[in-house]
Amino acid sequence: MNRSVISIGIIGFGTVGTGTARLLLQNSNLIKKRTGIDFVLKKIADLDIKKDRGIKIPEGILTTDAAELINDPDIDIVVELIGGIHPAKDFILQAIRNKKHVVTANKALLATKGNEIFEEADKNGVEIGFEASVAGGIPIIKVLREGLVANNIIAVYGIINGTSNYILTKMTDEKVEFADALKEAQRLGYAEADPTFDIEGIDSAHKLTILSSLSYGIPLMYDEVYKEGITKITSQDIEFASELGYKIKLLAITKLSDGGVEMRVHPTMVPNEYLISKVDGVFNAVYVEGDAVGATMYYGRGAGDMPTGSAVVADIVDIGKKIDKRQETEGRRQTADNRQHRTEFKIKKIEDIESMYYFRFSALDQPGVLSKISGILGNYNISIASVIQKGRRIGGSVPLVVLTHMAKERDVLNAVKEIDNLTVVSDKTLFIRVEGKEG
Amino acid sequence: MNRSVISIGIIGFGTVGTGTARLLLQNSNLIKKRTGIDFVLKKIADLDIKKDRGIKIPEGILTTDAAELINDPDIDIVVELIGGIHPAKDFILQAIRNKKHVVTANKALLATKGNEIFEEADKNGVEIGFEASVAGGIPIIKVLREGLVANNIIAVYGIINGTSNYILTKMTDEKVEFADALKEAQRLGYAEADPTFDIEGIDSAHKLTILSSLSYGIPLMYDEVYKEGITKITSQDIEFASELGYKIKLLAITKLSDGGVEMRVHPTMVPNEYLISKVDGVFNAVYVEGDAVGATMYYGRGAGDMPTGSAVVADIVDIGKKIDKRQETEGRRQTADNRQHRTEFKIKKIEDIESMYYFRFSALDQPGVLSKISGILGNYNISIASVIQKGRRIGGSVPLVVLTHMAKERDVLNAVKEIDNLTVVSDKTLFIRVEGKEG
Repeated sequence: MNRSVISIGIIGFGTVGTGTARLLLQNSNLIKKRTGIDFVLKKIADLDIKKDRGIKIPEGILTTDAAELINDPDIDIVVELIGGIHPAKDFILQAIRNKKHVVTANKALLATKGNEIFEEADKNGVEIGFEASVAGGIPIIKVLREGLVANNIIAVYGIINGTSNYILTKMTDEKVEFADALKEAQRLGYAEADPTFDIEGIDSAHKLTILSSLSYGIPLMYDEVYKEGITKITSQDIEFASELGYKIKLLAITKLSDGGVEMRVHPTMVPNEYLISKVDGVFNAVYVEGDAVGATMYYGRGAGDMPTGSAVVADIVDIGKKIDKRQETEGRRQTADNRQHRTEFKIKKIEDIESMYYFRFSALDQPGVLSKISGILGNYNISIASVIQKGRRIGGSVPLVVLTHMAKERDVLNAVKEIDNLTVVSDKTLFIRVEGKEG
Repeated sequence: MNRSVISIGIIGFGTVGTGTARLLLQNSNLIKKRTGIDFVLKKIADLDIKKDRGIKIPEGILTTDAAELINDPDIDIVVELIGGIHPAKDFILQAIRNKKHVVTANKALLATKGNEIFEEADKNGVEIGFEASVAGGIPIIKVLREGLVANNIIAVYGIINGTSNYILTKMTDEKVEFADALKEAQRLGYAEADPTFDIEGIDSAHKLTILSSLSYGIPLMYDEVYKEGITKITSQDIEFASELGYKIKLLAITKLSDGGVEMRVHPTMVPNEYLISKVDGVFNAVYVEGDAVGATMYYGRGAGDMPTGSAVVADIVDIGKKIDKRQETEGRRQTADNRQHRTEFKIKKIEDIESMYYFRFSALDQPGVLSKISGILGNYNISIASVIQKGRRIGGSVPLVVLTHMAKERDVLNAVKEIDNLTVVSDKTLFIRVEGKEG
């Protein structure tokens, strides 16, 4: 027999909570037609239940007490949308212990406490849906777990923070500096008053932790992710990149190299011919390369009430279908998935990666500077692909731009340290990792 | 209790059959780790089992008799990869009646006979997996059915035929004519000796039929799809399009307008700013707009042994997981899905759509021609956005290019008929539908 009603409780009536509620109410007929299941929004908990959210909610479902829905025996799925670690983690753990399935968009929580949460869920035979935690409405979690299940994942490259992508796009299109682009992002509501998480790569690193765990069957290891934000990028770098045929994007990268898993977030020069270089504004995209499927890419909005709500509801429906089947036999069981299957793995330190590099040296405008710098690069086996040097400033410093072939990051760090000590170099060297084919 | 072995039989040991077999054999450990299930390739049927497929197959699994695996009580999933209508349809129906789940990449069969096949599958309580039938390795079927399940689909725009996309890309990049680009595609194995299905939009229409059915919950109605191929496109049109800021792509379009479902395949001018205009060569991409998620796009290889094999195996795994759960309780049941849920629907005829249009008129180089042509357009309420007229050929004909604002296709057809009867027009008018914002 089919139980065709699934009851939902949402904790957190902010942007995504409102989008999710709206979708559950507005598209419930559509979803019922598609699945045969009635998804009923039974409760919404938030500290502020007076505020007008611009949505008509049936009477009696708002509460200020999350425990009310976590402990409600009639609620099948608890949706956590308050974000942050506390009290979200406790709410989720309590819901799991009450044998409720959980859907969450909380990447910070999953990236840092996810192992504990998933373990508790496995113990209690419940599901955790987290499609909305990475790349908003793009169903990238489902793609990795199911669509590409037959593939060894070669590499994942993601633009998974809309705020920083908006800032870099604005700097590129309008030749403005970082600070002005950030201000505009804040004015438009794309960046928060404290933008640290977005512009320092922390949010991207949270999401990358999840993608990496799914791709390589390793635990969630946020602390191992190398993070570098976009605050040092100048419009001059963007212009040099353009001259060399590249866009600068904040990429979250995870890939296997020599048996080690790389996890890194940093500004990256991406060749203009690559589709992902065309992903602009607040849009997100995740490029996934599999050993069978080859190159694939998934593009869409990474944030916002309705796009993220779309992912939350997709998780609710997936879990609802599973509950529906279990109800038939009154049985529950765990689902194998590709979250963790490796018993041995190695995480690569950033010093151990290889890449191509863009350097912007601040060189005094004197004879012999290029020779000194290129000499040091040569000593560290860093081979030069292109050089741009222009402009003259009598007695001042000029940017000297060098693009390299593949080199070891460890060598790059050592070379830069030595170069920055030269008396003919007036400021710290900026370097950006470069993707693309050796050329 | 978990039954952890699922047995597979493949009918058709061609390109995709070989890719699927290779993947099942090579990545079986990975898949077992991810799912907890052993997927075992038990039999492969093909008329030619002598040919070297470049893959090591365990002894005793090859047979020339498809019935051998259709009737094998130990086989859980029959994978049909021979293509075409006969005998593929009979094999599939027989497998279904033997209570076997079926996975197929056969878009022509599903588009034209799919309603009968799905009905039979529902009757027998088995699943039909068809991820590989559209856009090769891109998990677009899963995205539409599950990832975007909460969305009303506003529109789908697909580049879903790699051959025609390769030809148009080559014509664009190298300024060659259609015939030469086709020859090159044939030389590279991207086009068949008889390229009709690819270049006339038939293959795209098969796939669109499936996408449309999933998006709008309507039956599979291949006969209702409007089809127009790429054979009339000249490199001159591509150049004019480029001058106006567009690329020409063969798009498969399905969308809702005024309550009617549009299904059409035709060359389309796509603005250069649209990401899908950058999808080049043999790559496929499907743009999907949902009412909640907004704009999304899915990109990858639309054909080839391993990419398509990736989709076939993803279906096998999905079905395997379901079987695995059913075995626990020895029960089978149907799965609701979003294949068909509309009881009433209206399909729009091509005459009833609205679009912007590009016209290339073959005008005699005489005074008053533009005035006559634009007069007729005006009479049919077709309003002009841009005109390009250049080159002079004394006494000969010159191309006169007109880009319009939104107009009704019916008016366009009537206007063109009238214009082609003018004595100052020397050849049939070519028109291409144009996507993008009114400008």
